Amino acid sequence: MDETLVTLTRGGFDESSHRGHVAIWQNDTGLVAGWGEPEAVILPRSSCKMIQALPLVESGAAARAGLATEQLALACASHNGAAIHTDRVRAWLDTLGMQESHLRCGPQTPADPDARAALIRADTHPDQCHNNCSGKHTGFLTLSRDLGGDAEYLAIDHPVQRAVLTAFEEVTGAPSQGFGVDGCSAPNHATTLAGLARAMASFAAAKSDGPVRQNAMRMLYDAMIAHPDLVAGEGRACTRIMRAASGRAAVKTGAEGVFVAIIPERQMGIAVKITDGATRAAEGTIAALLGGLGVLERDSVVHQELTTGPIRNRAGLETGHMRVAASLRDWAP
Amino acid sequence: MDETLVTLTRGGFDESSHRGHVAIWQNDTGLVAGWGEPEAVILPRSSCKMIQALPLVESGAAARAGLATEQLALACASHNGAAIHTDRVRAWLDTLGMQESHLRCGPQTPADPDARAALIRADTHPDQCHNNCSGKHTGFLTLSRDLGGDAEYLAIDHPVQRAVLTAFEEVTGAPSQGFGVDGCSAPNHATTLAGLARAMASFAAAKSDGPVRQNAMRMLYDAMIAHPDLVAGEGRACTRIMRAASGRAAVKTGAEGVFVAIIPERQMGIAVKITDGATRAAEGTIAALLGGLGVLERDSVVHQELTTGPIRNRAGLETGHMRVAASLRDWAP
Repeated sequence: MDETLVTLTRGGFDESSHRGHVAIWQNDTGLVAGWGEPEAVILPRSSCKMIQALPLVESGAAARAGLATEQLALACASHNGAAIHTDRVRAWLDTLGMQESHLRCGPQTPADPDARAALIRADTHPDQCHNNCSGKHTGFLTLSRDLGGDAEYLAIDHPVQRAVLTAFEEVTGAPSQGFGVDGCSAPNHATTLAGLARAMASFAAAKSDGPVRQNAMRMLYDAMIAHPDLVAGEGRACTRIMRAASGRAAVKTGAEGVFVAIIPERQMGIAVKITDGATRAAEGTIAALLGGLGVLERDSVVHQELTTGPIRNRAGLETGHMRVAASLRDWAP
Repeated sequence: MDETLVTLTRGGFDESSHRGHVAIWQNDTGLVAGWGEPEAVILPRSSCKMIQALPLVESGAAARAGLATEQLALACASHNGAAIHTDRVRAWLDTLGMQESHLRCGPQTPADPDARAALIRADTHPDQCHNNCSGKHTGFLTLSRDLGGDAEYLAIDHPVQRAVLTAFEEVTGAPSQGFGVDGCSAPNHATTLAGLARAMASFAAAKSDGPVRQNAMRMLYDAMIAHPDLVAGEGRACTRIMRAASGRAAVKTGAEGVFVAIIPERQMGIAVKITDGATRAAEGTIAALLGGLGVLERDSVVHQELTTGPIRNRAGLETGHMRVAASLRDWAP
């Protein structure tokens, strides 16, 4: 059964709490720690974008398209739809001889306040490039062009999605239990939480002078830590944690309370799923674990804000705190 | 212990779920049903605004200030900060000879998209009238002026807040266990969920020709159902449910997964607290219970959307459903 990972207090009361599952995998050892049920089957949502990007790199399509680290970071991103993201996605589509209309992710109001305000001032609507997954989709289009696939690159039997499933099952170490349709309409394959942590540990252990898969994993990891702002955006937990970790960890959020971490120095992968889908609890859990492992300074602003608060109200008054389970905060192998 | 009330599916998987507590109180009978622990102590947050408005009416301050049903509805509201709300709050402050600066709720970006866009186009910032609680606070100011209280009407020992606590403890039927500071900086008193349901049942049973308290309760209930748009706003669950219930129930949301209902035809009060604080689950739970009781048509759009979905993604594709526990959907006394 899942267990309580994060509690929110207000005025001395435990007001709300979040249950969930955690799996920590070390590359040569296997599962080294778990909370709740590490074998729980989950949909990883956007937390697995670096897995979905593997065929793009491994096939050589990325190299043939001349992709640099910025594009690879965007392929792994759930971005804010800020100009730094949408400008690069549009330029990338342009190099493919494609336009926004080739995307199949759907339009999304950008999370970035400046981008939102710019759309309102221009009296226009967000388009598919603003979708937080537009980098992943442009990666899919890049691979599809290379494979000679048709325009409907999200179909489950499209060469792009077949390649993604193959890579997904190989790195999670087991056949997927099925799939759901993600917020961006891409198939999102199920795995156990332990399987997702195993995959992240493979990324953590990958060497740039290793076999093709390891080389691809290392390129994607390096791209993520080189461009924390492209992977999410200003104010977002992924960007703030990766900046504060100074290259020692890559992290990635997923909808409905999923979060993963890749920690090369320990050849370790972490996967978190909050049962109720709460982002705040997934962020607190991953930050607390990284703090305990020494990858994120415990006295850093981001660690403190994500793991303890204080929670402030609209007038700026302190109204409560967040409390991450001690067994998470203090865990070390 | 809390129990699972709502589950979200995606692609055949149970992706996320929400646990919580429910208490249903009937005025002459007492607690008639419970899920989880009806005696769990909670902070009711904005769900108790009609209780916080009782002293305003009972004292005669509302009548002396010439408040109509629109102002009483706003006193019970967590509104969207749309023009229909802020215009009325500003006009009300004006009748008191006061301005926005007398409020102590803090500024808040309005939830209403048109109001947000208007602020951006005017290149200005939201003020305290946009705060979803500005009606409650203007009610506090109205009472404070009547009582001769000082400007800091949110202080726990201010005459306004002392009157609120007295009313709160009387209608919940027990001394409060303490308080937290709410998002709008007002003291928010703790109660058991059963106590909150008891209070709502008192509102449900109140008669307009009864004693002062009953008369005040009935006036506030009538104001809420007369102005569902002022209590929340377009697209919001409170507004939609009250419109669909056609005067047969008043409902009110509170932060962190609280929801209450007042059902006069059954002299019944319902109180819901989702453990993890999720609004979507509180809305689904209250809508399902109202559906089972026949107060909300089960084939109405709002009942279907809040209790079953479908959940759609950014391209409009159906990706999953919501499922409320059958014991809630099918409950009847």
